[in-house]
Amino acid sequence: MNLPLGFRYSALYAGIRKVAKPDLALILADQPASAAAVFTTNKVQAAPVRLSRAHLAETGGIARAVLVNAGNANCATRTGDRVALATARAAAKTLQCKPAEVLSSSTGVIGVELNPKLITDALPDLAAGLSPDRFLDAADAILTTDLVRKVAFAESGGIRIAGMTKGSGMIHPGMATTLAYVMTDAAMPPAALRAHLKAAVARSYNRLSVDGDMSTNDTLLVLASGASGIQPKKAAFQAALDEVCQSLAKQIARDGEGAQKFVEIQVSGAASEAAAARIARAIANSPLVKTAIAGSDPNWGRILCAAGYSGVDFDPTLVDIWLQGVKVCRKGLAAPMDEAALTRKLDAKDCLIRFQIAGEGKGQATFYTCDHTHGYIDINASYRT
Amino acid sequence: MNLPLGFRYSALYAGIRKVAKPDLALILADQPASAAAVFTTNKVQAAPVRLSRAHLAETGGIARAVLVNAGNANCATRTGDRVALATARAAAKTLQCKPAEVLSSSTGVIGVELNPKLITDALPDLAAGLSPDRFLDAADAILTTDLVRKVAFAESGGIRIAGMTKGSGMIHPGMATTLAYVMTDAAMPPAALRAHLKAAVARSYNRLSVDGDMSTNDTLLVLASGASGIQPKKAAFQAALDEVCQSLAKQIARDGEGAQKFVEIQVSGAASEAAAARIARAIANSPLVKTAIAGSDPNWGRILCAAGYSGVDFDPTLVDIWLQGVKVCRKGLAAPMDEAALTRKLDAKDCLIRFQIAGEGKGQATFYTCDHTHGYIDINASYRT
Repeated sequence: MNLPLGFRYSALYAGIRKVAKPDLALILADQPASAAAVFTTNKVQAAPVRLSRAHLAETGGIARAVLVNAGNANCATRTGDRVALATARAAAKTLQCKPAEVLSSSTGVIGVELNPKLITDALPDLAAGLSPDRFLDAADAILTTDLVRKVAFAESGGIRIAGMTKGSGMIHPGMATTLAYVMTDAAMPPAALRAHLKAAVARSYNRLSVDGDMSTNDTLLVLASGASGIQPKKAAFQAALDEVCQSLAKQIARDGEGAQKFVEIQVSGAASEAAAARIARAIANSPLVKTAIAGSDPNWGRILCAAGYSGVDFDPTLVDIWLQGVKVCRKGLAAPMDEAALTRKLDAKDCLIRFQIAGEGKGQATFYTCDHTHGYIDINASYRT
Repeated sequence: MNLPLGFRYSALYAGIRKVAKPDLALILADQPASAAAVFTTNKVQAAPVRLSRAHLAETGGIARAVLVNAGNANCATRTGDRVALATARAAAKTLQCKPAEVLSSSTGVIGVELNPKLITDALPDLAAGLSPDRFLDAADAILTTDLVRKVAFAESGGIRIAGMTKGSGMIHPGMATTLAYVMTDAAMPPAALRAHLKAAVARSYNRLSVDGDMSTNDTLLVLASGASGIQPKKAAFQAALDEVCQSLAKQIARDGEGAQKFVEIQVSGAASEAAAARIARAIANSPLVKTAIAGSDPNWGRILCAAGYSGVDFDPTLVDIWLQGVKVCRKGLAAPMDEAALTRKLDAKDCLIRFQIAGEGKGQATFYTCDHTHGYIDINASYRT
């Protein structure tokens, strides 16, 4: 793992979450970095989302620091905006930068007041702990119900990209899902970074679903320090950024709340990429498909049924479906198969659903999700209390 | 229970489902009855749905018989259309009516060939068993994963209405959900019956969700025999039909797959009824809200969050939320409450969520759903095998 130049990281336990593991992370760019972000499209937006959007507008896409806490979403609270602003200002003072150069995120329970003193009191230690090597410590501190750390790295033409993300519930495409921070030492103006981010998100985070719930706090942020001194070629940088974002998105699906299996859905032959994505999303969001996968049940009728209510116009008699490479549906009808053998194949950790419409078009899309198990219910029936 | 005049019912076990309980039902109108129906809007439609739609078009809304089997959806099968047509023709011969006067429905697994001989062989016994008193036998024979029978009755101005329905999974609004048959002895032409049905469905079956999956076979059919000799007043008949349809829809939610609790969601103060329904639907479909209810967790943040991604524009700071009559959110923020006491209230079998937007409009809507538990996963991870 070769980390991008020009960044330092820190993390500690500030007492925000009940369990005593790090819950406050800081990412610092040594110099003002180009910054681009996408945020939740939920009408209910957390205070740090509003603040970060305002700060990016104020600076025109420049940032020095990212302050992230886990354990409290700082959303739908009386003091939310004040807390977000006060902690960003305190961080700016500690780090000797402008308040607008500080971006912030929160994740955790909604509707509970966040005590800013927990964060401001921790800032001196947090700043003292900054180091170029503590990337993984920061990645761990942003996790909530996640079972595993989620990071991804890429190198291309002399520049480095490193990303960290969190999330396993309230995951739904149509926006930047959950929290993600991607650092690169490429040299690039904010506008170019924004264009690259938009393209990368379209085929990674916006093709990801765990439970269909869209959070109030979701943020995906890319920082480019320029510390490599290299202005990368567009296509090569896009490919590297795509690789990191897709890896992070897949890791979220794999660690979906209660998930035992990672599910990839490939749709092809639709009239357009948008139509393919819509079909894939309907399949990915179907509780009946996701429970069938959990039970290793090759119930392709549910897959066809979900595609049927996706809102996309297609001819069901042109549809072929494969599960784990085994054809289960041919021209909309049952294909002969060895069900016992396929059931065993479906016991694997990775499940692939291919849905192909013959001769309708060239639109294709890949979507990531997970199976739906008791674990999801165990986690979410008692998350708050 | 006063049954509508002019109908007879029968049911028996024809060997379609594995478990030896009745799986074939017949409803017969003694004379040609006015008929109106709504069907699934899924692009993938079962053969009996296609046949019934064609038959209703052919007769202009007249029917004599309804033939329903459980245990096989007769959908996405090679012989589906032939099986639906052959069994309807055989029923017409047995009952001495026109084939187009026979409507049919199937429910069960998708993509498995349905053997028509099981049905045609059973027709003589099925017809021999017809009786005005066997309404409940027919209601039992159409059930699949349902745990309880679902029937509802109303009387108004001398006419009677009796409805039966089935369904506990693949339940999603936006269409006539699952199977339902409503008989009345009111005298009414097909066009009037269609108008009444459309209005009744809008506020009953289209306000119902269990898992967000929309079936390929859903059918809601109303038959008016005219045997009472009474042409009812419009408003009174509508009220009685609404009562029956809402009762049936609520019974489906209460018996949702794995459900331990019935959940009613009342949204008010939206800009329009459509906006209120959209917010209510997002709350009803949120797995996070439904698991919180399962865990008796007063996690109102998830309710506000779901409304936020419903696609409806509203001001979160104007929102009040009540759970079981206890205010938990005031102007978008936490309201002071006794959480332990509320948790105990949430242990009840019936859960009421009220979501009110202050001063935005007069749009209101009520939606029915259930909690989301391990039971849903147990049922659906092994339904097929």
